[in-house]
Amino acid sequence: MSNTSNTSNTNQGPVTVLGLGMMGTALATAFVKNGNATTVWNRSAGKADALVEQGAVFTAGIRQAIEASPVIVACVSTYEVLNELIGGAAAELKGKTIVNLTSGTPEDARALAGWAEQHGVRYLDGTIMAVPQMIGLPQAMVFYAGAQEVFAEQEELLKPLAGSNVYLGADTGAAMIYDLGLLSLLWSSLAGYFHAVALVQSAGVSAEAFTPFALTWIEHVITPAIPRSAQEIDSGNFATEVSSLGVNKAAIEHLVATSRQLGVDSDFSAAIQALIERRVAEGHAGHSLASLVEAFKQG
Amino acid sequence: MSNTSNTSNTNQGPVTVLGLGMMGTALATAFVKNGNATTVWNRSAGKADALVEQGAVFTAGIRQAIEASPVIVACVSTYEVLNELIGGAAAELKGKTIVNLTSGTPEDARALAGWAEQHGVRYLDGTIMAVPQMIGLPQAMVFYAGAQEVFAEQEELLKPLAGSNVYLGADTGAAMIYDLGLLSLLWSSLAGYFHAVALVQSAGVSAEAFTPFALTWIEHVITPAIPRSAQEIDSGNFATEVSSLGVNKAAIEHLVATSRQLGVDSDFSAAIQALIERRVAEGHAGHSLASLVEAFKQG
Repeated sequence: MSNTSNTSNTNQGPVTVLGLGMMGTALATAFVKNGNATTVWNRSAGKADALVEQGAVFTAGIRQAIEASPVIVACVSTYEVLNELIGGAAAELKGKTIVNLTSGTPEDARALAGWAEQHGVRYLDGTIMAVPQMIGLPQAMVFYAGAQEVFAEQEELLKPLAGSNVYLGADTGAAMIYDLGLLSLLWSSLAGYFHAVALVQSAGVSAEAFTPFALTWIEHVITPAIPRSAQEIDSGNFATEVSSLGVNKAAIEHLVATSRQLGVDSDFSAAIQALIERRVAEGHAGHSLASLVEAFKQG
Repeated sequence: MSNTSNTSNTNQGPVTVLGLGMMGTALATAFVKNGNATTVWNRSAGKADALVEQGAVFTAGIRQAIEASPVIVACVSTYEVLNELIGGAAAELKGKTIVNLTSGTPEDARALAGWAEQHGVRYLDGTIMAVPQMIGLPQAMVFYAGAQEVFAEQEELLKPLAGSNVYLGADTGAAMIYDLGLLSLLWSSLAGYFHAVALVQSAGVSAEAFTPFALTWIEHVITPAIPRSAQEIDSGNFATEVSSLGVNKAAIEHLVATSRQLGVDSDFSAAIQALIERRVAEGHAGHSLASLVEAFKQG
């Protein structure tokens, strides 16, 4: 795994960006700012206006967009959309490199890498672990997966996008696995926060009044629990002096019951409760919450 | 809301601690260390040994434990257990104060406060937002709810337990609401992390190798999303330039599908997916994730 941490870049080679959603626009803007000759394509033209003002070139045709640069950075809504978009342009892509930052599944990524190999196209899969506003900043992180040679060739060109460019390995599906894992962490954390807000609102407390406590809790309780859990998971030793599944089983019953009583969604908590109950039923009442990873792996 | 932040304490009055689980033991230890004459009670005697060595007095009878001090700090497994425990000791409790740090529901707390009032017992409900190892440290936080007068009387005595003692107001159920809200945030965040670990393990990545990325993600993406979401929730303005429910709907489909394919639990993610889909179906595809709080409030 290589991890570079620098957004300054002396590679100002030409690059094409396909897709000008919030994220694609942020990527193209970062290239323009770095001085790269940047060609942009989007299904509808209007989204390119601000970029063209900053110096990008908009092309309405996908073939011309591909012909304009040796490296094509794609950030469209799905792999299906991308497959359809480039499916008829294999001839124009031959010998070029696709850096695909579209969100999808590991299977999507592996299938597209297979197609690229068949057609003599160099392929790097990637996933952006940042919101559009973070693109180009040191704290933005992009994961790449695929042939190491292709990553090495493009690493310099890709530096303006993020402070950290992390190469995960030759399995083209790896970036999407990391992506989905971190998205699950994001969605579940925020859903837990929204659930909490719905509960405290029922007692007349505003989201902003509750939030400092949520942030303190994340910093002092949730964050430290993560490396501790990692150690337990890798060692398989779930003995705990902090908080056992048995204690948590009783407490999550209160959460589900109170949510129901207050008319707040309880399905979300019940899904976690089911995992805790399954582990307790299997004899792990004295183990830590980290042993839930085993329940996740039982499907 | 008052919030004091100091664990040093000049009130070394006698105090009784009921319940010597991990947390009750930590509470009793903090009182002993502060120099308070500390009486402890637990159903089984063995758990008191280390405390008695440090200077606490163990009493096997609940009535004697209550008679020993004017303030009774309770931390047992459930309100049911506590109700049964003190139900026959109303006479001994009369004129004394119960500070109840047991976990339960807002209704449990309000019911016990009612019982206490009937029997001339002063009652303060509370919830400890910390793991036992944090008791007595500046970052530990305890929420209290109930009559302000009772909080004011006991605030000084309770200082050795935590750096922050937060009085939430006269609704005795408020502490349990905050407790359940923050527990939901904890469980869901950790469940999201365990889900992520189960996914990356399928690609041969260890929990410890993945964890630095999870921590960076929490710091730079999840944490900043929380105050931003609070503002959106309180204003009711869910317009976003960061990430829309429509985009997230597509991405969470990938998560559920990939989890199923890899034999990793998908019920947990499907519960969040259902909330996202409901909001999108109701016309909020362009709104931020924070608008999910409305789906939570629809039960």
